[in-house]
Amino acid sequence: MKAEIISIGTELLMGELTDTNATFIASRLPPLGIQLQWVSHVGDNLDMLAEAFTRGLNRSDIIFTSGGLGPTQDDLTREAIAKALGEEMVVQDDLLEQLRGYFRQRGTDNMPSTNIKQATLIPSARTIPNRRGTAPGWWVESGGKIVVTMPGPPSELQGIWEEEVVPRLQQVARGEIILTRSLKTTGLSEGGLDEMISRHLGPVMRQENPNLGIYAKADGIHLRIIARAPDEEAARRLIQPLEQGLVSLVGPYIWGYDDETPEQAAGLLLTQKHLTLATMESCTGGLLINSITEVPGSEGYFKGGIVIYGSDGSAWIRNGVPSAIIEDHGIISQEAAGAMAQAAREQLKADIGIGVTGVTGPQRIEGKPVGTVHIAIALDKTVNQFPSRWPPRRVTIRRRAASTALIELRRLLNTL
Amino acid sequence: MKAEIISIGTELLMGELTDTNATFIASRLPPLGIQLQWVSHVGDNLDMLAEAFTRGLNRSDIIFTSGGLGPTQDDLTREAIAKALGEEMVVQDDLLEQLRGYFRQRGTDNMPSTNIKQATLIPSARTIPNRRGTAPGWWVESGGKIVVTMPGPPSELQGIWEEEVVPRLQQVARGEIILTRSLKTTGLSEGGLDEMISRHLGPVMRQENPNLGIYAKADGIHLRIIARAPDEEAARRLIQPLEQGLVSLVGPYIWGYDDETPEQAAGLLLTQKHLTLATMESCTGGLLINSITEVPGSEGYFKGGIVIYGSDGSAWIRNGVPSAIIEDHGIISQEAAGAMAQAAREQLKADIGIGVTGVTGPQRIEGKPVGTVHIAIALDKTVNQFPSRWPPRRVTIRRRAASTALIELRRLLNTL
Repeated sequence: MKAEIISIGTELLMGELTDTNATFIASRLPPLGIQLQWVSHVGDNLDMLAEAFTRGLNRSDIIFTSGGLGPTQDDLTREAIAKALGEEMVVQDDLLEQLRGYFRQRGTDNMPSTNIKQATLIPSARTIPNRRGTAPGWWVESGGKIVVTMPGPPSELQGIWEEEVVPRLQQVARGEIILTRSLKTTGLSEGGLDEMISRHLGPVMRQENPNLGIYAKADGIHLRIIARAPDEEAARRLIQPLEQGLVSLVGPYIWGYDDETPEQAAGLLLTQKHLTLATMESCTGGLLINSITEVPGSEGYFKGGIVIYGSDGSAWIRNGVPSAIIEDHGIISQEAAGAMAQAAREQLKADIGIGVTGVTGPQRIEGKPVGTVHIAIALDKTVNQFPSRWPPRRVTIRRRAASTALIELRRLLNTL
Repeated sequence: MKAEIISIGTELLMGELTDTNATFIASRLPPLGIQLQWVSHVGDNLDMLAEAFTRGLNRSDIIFTSGGLGPTQDDLTREAIAKALGEEMVVQDDLLEQLRGYFRQRGTDNMPSTNIKQATLIPSARTIPNRRGTAPGWWVESGGKIVVTMPGPPSELQGIWEEEVVPRLQQVARGEIILTRSLKTTGLSEGGLDEMISRHLGPVMRQENPNLGIYAKADGIHLRIIARAPDEEAARRLIQPLEQGLVSLVGPYIWGYDDETPEQAAGLLLTQKHLTLATMESCTGGLLINSITEVPGSEGYFKGGIVIYGSDGSAWIRNGVPSAIIEDHGIISQEAAGAMAQAAREQLKADIGIGVTGVTGPQRIEGKPVGTVHIAIALDKTVNQFPSRWPPRRVTIRRRAASTALIELRRLLNTL
């Protein structure tokens, strides 16, 4: 089943909005056996939209749209589909009643008249209910082709997708499905992994199905298995032996799977082991704390953190780092990171402390080059040390330092 | 001049990558007098790419591409253009020498042979130099149409764009240009602004050129002026009187212009006034600190911050909040926020302290509902207070709390 996405809105063409809806839809299609061939952005212009639909209906089996379902004159998705199919939009009494109900629930009896077009259908369309807004989607079937229209706000689109669109797609999509499994590693290089896999698992990298790819990412090297099969069950059976082989080969280097983030992986283990965490960071400037607290439920294990900024050693000493350490080793040192980890743990009464110090540039600090980072994790009576050196790009250093600290924390927790 | 963007790569169609390059290019075209009509994503498939170029050359005056310029077999942008134009790719000795030089600089004499295609041109193409990678772009002119190919990595694309593409576009683009000016406000509602503007400035909202729009965003209400004119100078002359009218009407509510962020606006004033800042936050979980330190140069005015997490009052007391305040008012109170601001300032030896405490959910704390946030800014002997109540969405509360704290800081600094 060949698909295309039409993302609708002049804001996209003005560069005021990035099209994350296309990314969301695209990432959900392979496991459904639907092959995405094209993505287009089209402005709020009836003729251009109708042209896009006409072309799409010619070349694709199914078209997904986002946006252009609002009540204003600029919202032309419905009109364009009606035009492309030569059909008439007709107000539906039951939809109109639902729409009025939506406004009443929000405390107003006066639905603006412009909203009425949200209660229309064309003969080829059925409604896709939208519990999160006033714009229902359309499921259009005509000439063996399908058009699925969805509202533009990501929370509405994602809600409709999971609840309404996926079940219907599972009925109609009958193609080969694609299932992906990612194993996220750190501690081995891309080349090193490649070599180990070739030596022990044979030529799996050149194998078509399941296919194995190696990708370098900000949070380590990812091993991605892609399987094609008639259904999900069969695809899993293709993936499993290769996944098992990889786990027995490089298991200790794997820190997470699929969409998992370092902060989620570490948070899960902290919760399971009933341990609490505190942090003290300098060069990451709060990125470490912020990553940790972005995980819902982090209040259960995270006690808080301290960010020391600038390069004045007295700030370190005031926050519990012994002055002798700063005098002997400086603020950019493995010793300082260790003392920060211990100070965080003691001052914030946590089981585990993380300390991060380093140089993000533009200038060297204490003669140490940009890209130098020292990470320490204090746990029981030991302080675990992770010195690193990365390329001198401010944003990259911050990101890699924060994710490395969390990946190493996860690894340590796993050994407890 | 009608333009389209073709973003190239199977990763886009698999949903593994969001197309931020299209957003970047799209946002830069209006001031150049170029109208973007279409954006398409196309996979790494020669036939589909060639089809996309053929269609683009028919319907657009200029095509911008990103991606597909790498050295591998999957990188087919050059091949597809050659195919669409019926031209032959020929290796250029000077380009090959430059490419070899690039590898030598990085310490290797062995350039992989696959890279050779990065040193080719077709007769209609000239090279666009790329100082940040191995893939130069192509500037293709054929049959009165232009194709501009750029590499996919955003830092390479943006570098090429500013240094090489914009100057060439200024030579060829001769259309009406569009200039935008945004005034970012807080403290007035969308409706309140609308009413004030209509009452004092007349029907500017319904005026075509310059056009004024009001948009509610996470960091306040934006007033956006859009002007169309033969050149930038003329567009500025259209914008200026309206901008002046708005500034004299709502000046005190404006905190920034165009792409400015609250952390940049506050940072600029801190630098100018030689003042330093420290923070103590709870519900924002480090987002405030992280926003502040993302600004390059923030080490000049930011002394650091403390994040207290969870709802255990003793953590507040340990960080310098008087126990009487926690006992009498609780951790979710304007009094606690004020004490946090003062404690941050004192403990981190800064001129100004910010305190933020609140409830991001899912549960109430001390009976206070989700969405309650207290912000305080300690400056000289006064503590300025900003209680707020926002809709109960975790991510939204965090973002609005952090940006409100910084916008209010900027406002206070402006009065000094």
